[in-house]
Amino acid sequence: MLPGAVDQQEMIPSKKNAVLVDGVVLNGPTTDAKAGEKFVEEACRLIMEEVVLKATDVNEKVCEWRPPEQLKQLLDLEMRDSGEPPHRLLELCRDVIRYSVKTNHPRFFNQLYAGLDYYSLVARFMTEALNPSVYTYEVSPVFLLVEEAVLKKMIEFIGWKEGDGIFNPGGSVSNMYAMNLARYKYCPDIKEKGLSGSPRLILFTSAECHYSMKKAASFLGIGTENVCFVETDGRGKMIPEELEKQVWQARKEGAAPFLVCATSGTTVLGAFDPLDEIADICERHNLWLHVDDLLKKCYCAKASYLFQQDKFYDVSYDTGDKSIQCSRRPDAFKFWMTWKALGTSGLEERVNRALALSRYLVDEIKKREGFKLLLEPEYANICFWYIPPSLREMEEGPEFWAKLNLVAPAIKERMMKKGSLMLGYQPHRGKVNFFRQVVISPQVSREDMDFLLDEIDLLGKDM
Amino acid sequence: MLPGAVDQQEMIPSKKNAVLVDGVVLNGPTTDAKAGEKFVEEACRLIMEEVVLKATDVNEKVCEWRPPEQLKQLLDLEMRDSGEPPHRLLELCRDVIRYSVKTNHPRFFNQLYAGLDYYSLVARFMTEALNPSVYTYEVSPVFLLVEEAVLKKMIEFIGWKEGDGIFNPGGSVSNMYAMNLARYKYCPDIKEKGLSGSPRLILFTSAECHYSMKKAASFLGIGTENVCFVETDGRGKMIPEELEKQVWQARKEGAAPFLVCATSGTTVLGAFDPLDEIADICERHNLWLHVDDLLKKCYCAKASYLFQQDKFYDVSYDTGDKSIQCSRRPDAFKFWMTWKALGTSGLEERVNRALALSRYLVDEIKKREGFKLLLEPEYANICFWYIPPSLREMEEGPEFWAKLNLVAPAIKERMMKKGSLMLGYQPHRGKVNFFRQVVISPQVSREDMDFLLDEIDLLGKDM
Repeated sequence: MLPGAVDQQEMIPSKKNAVLVDGVVLNGPTTDAKAGEKFVEEACRLIMEEVVLKATDVNEKVCEWRPPEQLKQLLDLEMRDSGEPPHRLLELCRDVIRYSVKTNHPRFFNQLYAGLDYYSLVARFMTEALNPSVYTYEVSPVFLLVEEAVLKKMIEFIGWKEGDGIFNPGGSVSNMYAMNLARYKYCPDIKEKGLSGSPRLILFTSAECHYSMKKAASFLGIGTENVCFVETDGRGKMIPEELEKQVWQARKEGAAPFLVCATSGTTVLGAFDPLDEIADICERHNLWLHVDDLLKKCYCAKASYLFQQDKFYDVSYDTGDKSIQCSRRPDAFKFWMTWKALGTSGLEERVNRALALSRYLVDEIKKREGFKLLLEPEYANICFWYIPPSLREMEEGPEFWAKLNLVAPAIKERMMKKGSLMLGYQPHRGKVNFFRQVVISPQVSREDMDFLLDEIDLLGKDM
Repeated sequence: MLPGAVDQQEMIPSKKNAVLVDGVVLNGPTTDAKAGEKFVEEACRLIMEEVVLKATDVNEKVCEWRPPEQLKQLLDLEMRDSGEPPHRLLELCRDVIRYSVKTNHPRFFNQLYAGLDYYSLVARFMTEALNPSVYTYEVSPVFLLVEEAVLKKMIEFIGWKEGDGIFNPGGSVSNMYAMNLARYKYCPDIKEKGLSGSPRLILFTSAECHYSMKKAASFLGIGTENVCFVETDGRGKMIPEELEKQVWQARKEGAAPFLVCATSGTTVLGAFDPLDEIADICERHNLWLHVDDLLKKCYCAKASYLFQQDKFYDVSYDTGDKSIQCSRRPDAFKFWMTWKALGTSGLEERVNRALALSRYLVDEIKKREGFKLLLEPEYANICFWYIPPSLREMEEGPEFWAKLNLVAPAIKERMMKKGSLMLGYQPHRGKVNFFRQVVISPQVSREDMDFLLDEIDLLGKDM
């Protein structure tokens, strides 16, 4: 018999007071809790064995690449009229694990992942099991207090006297909140009246900023054309003089500057905008300054929107909650658990080690033949080219760059098919395709940095 | 020794090639995987015992109520400089579980929860362990195919020939997407130009709609004043004639109607707007029709934004992804797992049983002294008053209603402190505080319905 349904034929005679409405037996429950519990137990064992215990093993593959059509054949995705038995569901779980990319793997460098954090994982398992929804103290007493404690500690840590915030489901959403707050500050009436008839609002960010700024401007009705990109220097930092020039220009055109989005740690180059000078300009022109804070990346937590001094946020004025979502996950809880487990000093050590490892990798890149830094890194983002032997003697002219542009994608394809590591690449503002390594995982060692360069060389040396 | 850090003093002598950069040993890893794995294993056992195995036990308390200041004393929330050892973290986990509201409990009726779904829980554990981020096939091959399969099946199920969609982190976000899509349809230029200088956009929804509509209008720059609330009939359904009248009125005022948000299953009363008549009006006036679909509630999945025929969604035109978030969780996966486990017929049975149980509860309310329905329910939302003995002989005048208004909050306080069940109450459009029960959980039986009414009577009979 399938879990999820108790045989009703069997139930009826045993229940003296069986109640039927429209042919449905209402005595209950209908779900077979024992079978369900057993399934959860077995699945947890599978997750433990196939995901958790293998997570730190560098001999495991980072991915088991299959093209979409082939993967569809391998997986049994179809939802049928009848349910599938538990042993079949466990097989499906096994396949899902097998063909999923191992983002916990010490050699998964494709995005900003920091390996498997055991404490955060436990907090997330707890969250899923307890299934809370953070909107009222009545329903989420513990998680609301946890969030308050984490925010208080973070505000204190930064050295501020007061502040407020919420944890959000990601950086893009956080940037939208920032834009919405700045707009409210500029003109509170917009909340009720909308933007129709208001002056043309305009915001400034660096040409290196995260693409979510344009999304946010589109979504909030500000318009992507009203995102003004300020030129950066050779290191990817916003040039303050250029910012002020653009603010004047916007005013001259009759637009209404309201916001500067600075970045501490740009996505690609890891550049830090000069905040002091930008803050001075914001003060002179009465602009809201938002900083897309790198803290979230350092601390391996989901992005949080933090530290706005203005506590007003009340777009949802009929309930008083601060979020654009009605219910949300207690994202602060996993960060709290990790902080509890490591302590502030443990978190600090992680950051220091990541920076030391970055410096080690930079030195190795400089030492090794065929590797070339894009620029001297300021933080943990290391951007570099691999130049295969056939290009090493070539003059750095158009032909060289055109050929080099093809190298990173070809190496990426080979590493995906081999499954030995995953590393991202991209072109960026006139620079042809290069690799980007961001060192943030505490599971990563010198050996992994050596492996990264050895493997790229191994995969690309015949090119 | 704490997990999370291997004693570096011990490591140095054993490593012949120890590499130090700025005093940090880079040989690694520094994290103690064995200790971490053990912690996860023990935490999983705790979660299994304290959450999963107790979830269906009606003898467990639904909540262990403590006021905020007292709960802060009971929990050790502070994050310190040093980390805490695993056994201490497990104690914390135990406390978190103890004082959290048991949303899985068969007698948690406070919000739209459907008990513990074992299949969805396993899918969510898998998700947290694998930690995917659904943005590219490269990084999330399995989960992207799962989402595609679920959407395809849902579109087919509804009987449509084509469609597209994504799973979102909630209903509020889904409504924002709908509004953004409608705006794009009305005038694609708004994406680039913004709303400044555009006509005053205006949208229509029923006076019973979810409050997220006003939030969305505020966030998107449309303005809360431009959400026009259409009058409803006695059952909470939008009156089509009133809608058309308001559309004409808006046009007369020079505003630009662009969207009607109809609701299939309003939050409080569970009313269904007359979609056919509303669709005719939308066609006549060239308005986008969005339906806040109840499907998501029936199917116990997180809300999804679904079935827009228009595939354009490209606010993020530089990457082509469809979401306002850059990375997101594979929410389709848990729905897929449940669908796989129960089959379409199993899901259908759940819906039928919930409706039958609703009818049973309605009959009981009618039979029992001291219970009074607000109105005959159309679906699974059952709104009712409990009238304590002292009010039963009183005339239904202002004094009666003023006194009755205090009854539900007082009973709610008693049930929270006792921990025997949780049920929501609210006033609504001139009706004083009443209880609202929405029957959706497959774990719930006739016995729970009886208990609900018995317990309310027990808690309120001295009032």
